[in-house]
Amino acid sequence: MLVPQLLNPKSIAVIGASNDTCKPGGKVLQNLLAHQYQGQLYAVNPREQQVQGVACYPSCEFLPDVDLAIIAVAANYVESALQTLAFQKSCKAFIVFSAGFSETCADGKALEARCAQIVNSVGGTLIGPNCIGVITAAYKGVFAGPIPAYNSMDCDCVSASGATMAYLLEAAIPRGLKFRDIFSVGNSAQVGVEEVLQYWDETFDPQHSSRIKLLYMEQIKEPQRFLKHAASLVNKGCRIAAIKAGNTEAGSRAVSSHTGALAGSDAAVSSLFRKAGVIRCYSRIELVYVAAIFSIQPLKGNRIAVITHAGGPGVMLTDILVKGGMQVPQLTGAKAEALLSKLHPGSSVANPIDFLATGNATQLGQILDAVENDFEEIDGSVVVFGTTGMWRVDDVYMVLHEKMKTCSKPIFPILPSAIQAAEELSRFHAMGHINFTDEVSFGYVLSRVNKLQPPYTCPTLPEVNTAKVRQVIQQAQEGYLPPDKVFDLLNAAGINTVKQHTATTLEEALDHASAIGYPLVMKVSGPVHKSDLGGVVVGIKYRTELEKTFGRLMQLEGADGVILQQQLSGTEVYLGAKAEDGYGHQVLCGLGGIFVEVFKDVSAALAPVGSEEARKMIRRLKSYPIIKGTRGKAGINEELLVEAIMKLSTLLEAAPEISEMDINPLMGTPGALVAVDARISVCKPERSIIDAPVQSIFVNPKSAAILSSQTA
Amino acid sequence: MLVPQLLNPKSIAVIGASNDTCKPGGKVLQNLLAHQYQGQLYAVNPREQQVQGVACYPSCEFLPDVDLAIIAVAANYVESALQTLAFQKSCKAFIVFSAGFSETCADGKALEARCAQIVNSVGGTLIGPNCIGVITAAYKGVFAGPIPAYNSMDCDCVSASGATMAYLLEAAIPRGLKFRDIFSVGNSAQVGVEEVLQYWDETFDPQHSSRIKLLYMEQIKEPQRFLKHAASLVNKGCRIAAIKAGNTEAGSRAVSSHTGALAGSDAAVSSLFRKAGVIRCYSRIELVYVAAIFSIQPLKGNRIAVITHAGGPGVMLTDILVKGGMQVPQLTGAKAEALLSKLHPGSSVANPIDFLATGNATQLGQILDAVENDFEEIDGSVVVFGTTGMWRVDDVYMVLHEKMKTCSKPIFPILPSAIQAAEELSRFHAMGHINFTDEVSFGYVLSRVNKLQPPYTCPTLPEVNTAKVRQVIQQAQEGYLPPDKVFDLLNAAGINTVKQHTATTLEEALDHASAIGYPLVMKVSGPVHKSDLGGVVVGIKYRTELEKTFGRLMQLEGADGVILQQQLSGTEVYLGAKAEDGYGHQVLCGLGGIFVEVFKDVSAALAPVGSEEARKMIRRLKSYPIIKGTRGKAGINEELLVEAIMKLSTLLEAAPEISEMDINPLMGTPGALVAVDARISVCKPERSIIDAPVQSIFVNPKSAAILSSQTA
Repeated sequence: MLVPQLLNPKSIAVIGASNDTCKPGGKVLQNLLAHQYQGQLYAVNPREQQVQGVACYPSCEFLPDVDLAIIAVAANYVESALQTLAFQKSCKAFIVFSAGFSETCADGKALEARCAQIVNSVGGTLIGPNCIGVITAAYKGVFAGPIPAYNSMDCDCVSASGATMAYLLEAAIPRGLKFRDIFSVGNSAQVGVEEVLQYWDETFDPQHSSRIKLLYMEQIKEPQRFLKHAASLVNKGCRIAAIKAGNTEAGSRAVSSHTGALAGSDAAVSSLFRKAGVIRCYSRIELVYVAAIFSIQPLKGNRIAVITHAGGPGVMLTDILVKGGMQVPQLTGAKAEALLSKLHPGSSVANPIDFLATGNATQLGQILDAVENDFEEIDGSVVVFGTTGMWRVDDVYMVLHEKMKTCSKPIFPILPSAIQAAEELSRFHAMGHINFTDEVSFGYVLSRVNKLQPPYTCPTLPEVNTAKVRQVIQQAQEGYLPPDKVFDLLNAAGINTVKQHTATTLEEALDHASAIGYPLVMKVSGPVHKSDLGGVVVGIKYRTELEKTFGRLMQLEGADGVILQQQLSGTEVYLGAKAEDGYGHQVLCGLGGIFVEVFKDVSAALAPVGSEEARKMIRRLKSYPIIKGTRGKAGINEELLVEAIMKLSTLLEAAPEISEMDINPLMGTPGALVAVDARISVCKPERSIIDAPVQSIFVNPKSAAILSSQTA
Repeated sequence: MLVPQLLNPKSIAVIGASNDTCKPGGKVLQNLLAHQYQGQLYAVNPREQQVQGVACYPSCEFLPDVDLAIIAVAANYVESALQTLAFQKSCKAFIVFSAGFSETCADGKALEARCAQIVNSVGGTLIGPNCIGVITAAYKGVFAGPIPAYNSMDCDCVSASGATMAYLLEAAIPRGLKFRDIFSVGNSAQVGVEEVLQYWDETFDPQHSSRIKLLYMEQIKEPQRFLKHAASLVNKGCRIAAIKAGNTEAGSRAVSSHTGALAGSDAAVSSLFRKAGVIRCYSRIELVYVAAIFSIQPLKGNRIAVITHAGGPGVMLTDILVKGGMQVPQLTGAKAEALLSKLHPGSSVANPIDFLATGNATQLGQILDAVENDFEEIDGSVVVFGTTGMWRVDDVYMVLHEKMKTCSKPIFPILPSAIQAAEELSRFHAMGHINFTDEVSFGYVLSRVNKLQPPYTCPTLPEVNTAKVRQVIQQAQEGYLPPDKVFDLLNAAGINTVKQHTATTLEEALDHASAIGYPLVMKVSGPVHKSDLGGVVVGIKYRTELEKTFGRLMQLEGADGVILQQQLSGTEVYLGAKAEDGYGHQVLCGLGGIFVEVFKDVSAALAPVGSEEARKMIRRLKSYPIIKGTRGKAGINEELLVEAIMKLSTLLEAAPEISEMDINPLMGTPGALVAVDARISVCKPERSIIDAPVQSIFVNPKSAAILSSQTA
């Protein structure tokens, strides 16, 4: 919860204020003063009577009541300062810069917990510790980083890394990005990224709230809370871009070394973002480009006019747009001819629209008007316009400014002359615009942004025989379920299973064979690595073959019976699920065999998975053409596969104790989907599965390998 | 050929010189003067007597002899100026800024050819037309773009797009990159990228030549010349990075609209670059990052220490390095402990080495010394160090400067505070260094650069029955060869083919069956789409089946016989080849069926392909684990596949008339590789195949689709 005193404090005390602006307590006071904080300012420092002209108190006891305290003293002084401020000075908002808490050692962690407890006990808000501060309309309470221009409709920002926040601003400001509220949440002792999202969601005001949210995270402590508020914000018209770093093992080691965060499973993060309609970024510069794209109205399609006076950049931009799935439609016909006649000889309007190095502001205006009014086949335009250095381009950028204001189709400005057109760019920024500098980076990011899907709504899932599911689960032991119980669960969820029976005598085997019908598959029951032992025989067509094979299989070491199974043909499908700490279950689908194991061609989504999300999972697969049917070979009934994914999702809801499962293969034809083999592992800690530590759940290295390939 | 007068002219005449520096003829003179050109300068302008203080002549006739002419007049005046200068003024070097040549229309193209002819006839050098000029140690002969700091050991640069050159400099200069010679070759009427490469190659001097070459191209007119000189330069120790734009259909449309270039096949470009040891870039910013990496000594391995005072960027950098195949090894043991003891409490040396926001210059020196001397498991380091804005970081960057000078392991500086540490960065640049600003972009590019392979040497290819190959080719008609001729060619190249015979009568069929042995495949001969007609039957085990099938197949429309073929099992391999205009043949390999058609999993290389290159092709395949054998299934003999690729390459050398071919499938087992089906198309124009126009060669849309997926 973010109290109003944090956002708009009537008074601020800087604890550890200093005249030395090379210290956090000096720099933050300097920033508060320089950016005209309008409330009452106090300083606390036992060795000063005034600090930077501000009245100074020897310790917190001597302060009057105060709304917000910014604390820049060594870690071991923080607790007592908090106590005094919270209990004696009615202080409700606290920003703690100090390091030396949970990021260092167990003692630091305990200290951090006690500090959070103090703030909680007065219903206050704690930002940090180990952060660079907060910027709101009212004040600039940070000690690090350049302070960006404030604009109430521009980027809201929250970061778990102070340095990343500062360096993000270093990259964003030169491109003209403006910011609204900035929260550096540090160790997130009380307020993390989720709480800030919740605050933005609950206080969202269509008239006055910014619609751009940028996040940097190294952990997502509460994925469900993240999902709820991120999706809600997107549904209210916001656009959210987020970096979740620490997505490799070595990267996670870095995370744990510097903020004490536990890295979640990376594929689950991508699934979470997809479900919430959040675009995932992997670098500061990508976040800056996405934010700049967000600052322009969205495209209504994927058809782009590339407008330039510079050939090469137009070519590279066109290449990357097309590779990213955008279209750069060729423009022909009378309207194209009419436009061409207004340009210098040698120009081209084929798209790219190249109006040559001598192209001018008037011509750019004519081109943008034509895109707006004459070419229905275009959804928006990208203008690449720099300068040779021979003349100023203010007039060109003024045309851009006017057209960006008045045109209904978005216009994206790539203005690469950072040196030679520096002044013109500053003016363009001052008119409220951003610019991109690299056309290929822009094209890559635009095509990613344009693929962003809205959040998935809560799905209606199919019915499941819950009583049967609960009965199986309650009777089950920890670990892998026996094959018949696995099939019981699948059947209870409405997933068809192959006809099969286990026989311990030849008579039983022959009975089962007549019930199932030939051809048959025979598998030894008991040993784990059946194939390696020659314990799986397919294509049993005759009674004599059955008899001979039964005898041989029963001789294998560990054999306690023989499974007789209906032999199915079709395409092998893989379905899987895995519990992720805090995320619930992740559902996986792909084609079986080499497609999963060699090509790692698997789609993932977080449960619950409805029909729309399931269909998108399937269509995202590289092997989707095989599902559709290819090379004269029948495919798989896509709607049955959608249903199977939803049934699996329902099963997981009824049996949250399932820690991991796979159905591999699920044999698919145009008419049916039948599970042939499946494994289910259950985990029954006293605590809910959701709170169980990660390492006790991740038991199957095979599924883990599949998941680790799902990083983009 | 680049004459010495272009590089180091004793005199320069600017034709079309102007007092108006908003004109090319004014701006270039200003640049020549401002950057202290030491030779004799002349201006030509009928309306002036002095231009910018330089003696001015009314026309070229009045000039004294001159080494270099920079021509900035309208296109229709260029030819006569060239004539006067070349034939009357002993001028040998010409830079033509003027547009309105081959990029516009047929007349312009003819004019351009006449201009080149004039220069050729005096053994001179023509740069342009339609370019922004040339920069050498002697002079800055450009009218556009910022002029970079000149350093004789830094980036040599050639670009076919003037705007791209200018905007490349806009992105490069702020990162501290310095340049040596710059050539904007425009329409490349006489001198293109290939000629500049040849010049650099032939004049390479280990003591005085730069080892960094940056190229921007929209066409490669002479791929073999490019290959020869690029590979030679790399073998001499140079590092080359190149953009070849226009790699999508829409992108190529842009190319043809603005410089009249014909786009080659994009996969062939990638193959060419791989063969030459050139790294392919796709954006200006990527080229800048690669150039900056090239300016630091190469890594000797892939094991990196990430050193930072800023947690988040260290995490993101580690993630991207690991994803790119680099290692960020965990550091443990006594030496790690010793290093840790020198850092502030809370620091980590696990790698990332995080020495906290309070980390200082002395500590950075200690860390870099430890990386250099104590950790054999590290090949180089990346230092991420910005500023909070509270203090200057000159001391830190001075330590970086000293360690970069003295350490044998490379150190890459990521210094993100472009705003707050602007002055310190300028000083760092002035000491001869570059800096990176975005850690993720850097990590991505570093891992690409580190995978760069040296050029392939000319291979020793296997023997081939050339007489037989020539006989088949000489007797062949244009177009697809009949099946028996295809097999004759494969056999002549030493590629095993499946036993098969064509029968027109049942008696023949039965004879062939006894010779080949059951089981058999039977295919109708005649119709093209055999499978669609039910014209292919596999698994013929008995004489009765053969008789029945023979009768049915002969009834199919268009049937002129039945092919009886040995039935093989194994893994289907695809081998292919395609003639590329100017490139010779491109050789393709992959697994057959869905792997080629759905996953587009194909590797390509330009012929001739030796064993090393063939092996790399195979190992680059995503399906390589299947070739090795996976899931208990036997793989394919890799060495036999290497040989088959080399034999195919030899066949192409003996039969350059082959325009396109594929062997699909080549049935592979651990013991053998046997071609089961193959197609070969020949093209026999009077001219050599190499000069044939692109569209007459690209006859098979299927192979074209495969190739178009080979863009990275």
